[in-house]
Amino acid sequence: MENDIIFVGKKPVMSYVMAILTHMNSGNNKVIIKARGSAISTAVDISQVTIHKFMKDLKLSNVELGTEELEDKDGKKRNVSFISIEMMR
Amino acid sequence: MENDIIFVGKKPVMSYVMAILTHMNSGNNKVIIKARGSAISTAVDISQVTIHKFMKDLKLSNVELGTEELEDKDGKKRNVSFISIEMMR
Repeated sequence: MENDIIFVGKKPVMSYVMAILTHMNSGNNKVIIKARGSAISTAVDISQVTIHKFMKDLKLSNVELGTEELEDKDGKKRNVSFISIEMMR
Repeated sequence: MENDIIFVGKKPVMSYVMAILTHMNSGNNKVIIKARGSAISTAVDISQVTIHKFMKDLKLSNVELGTEELEDKDGKKRNVSFISIEMMR
């Protein structure tokens, strides 16, 4: 569901870990974190910190990689890689 | 196999794409790219550029995320995330 998705940007890793914990402690059993470009590394860190340090019953259930076309300020199109990491308990 | 692995570091994306093309054009049907820390985003870019621009019969066959313990110069241990992207044709 749309509501299970957390988009990763430039905040510190722990902000997103907290968002995941809040989401999972609100009666949800699934969360998906999505990131583009250089935030992809952060998304992987977030998944690892959450699983290994905070929520040991959470498991990686799916990882998708892909490419999205984005338009920059000048209307120029460019391709950006993304990752989508699904975790369930 | 060990020989199918390409480690991603700080070189430009195209250096690794070239290494993959060379590997696949030497009679191999599988390649695995591995990256740690901030190189993870680069590894995803490499997989996307290779698949979408250079080798359209290549497909993502497996993506693994994990954590490795590294020792820095002072002997201090720290955890680093990694990605392993397997592609086959």
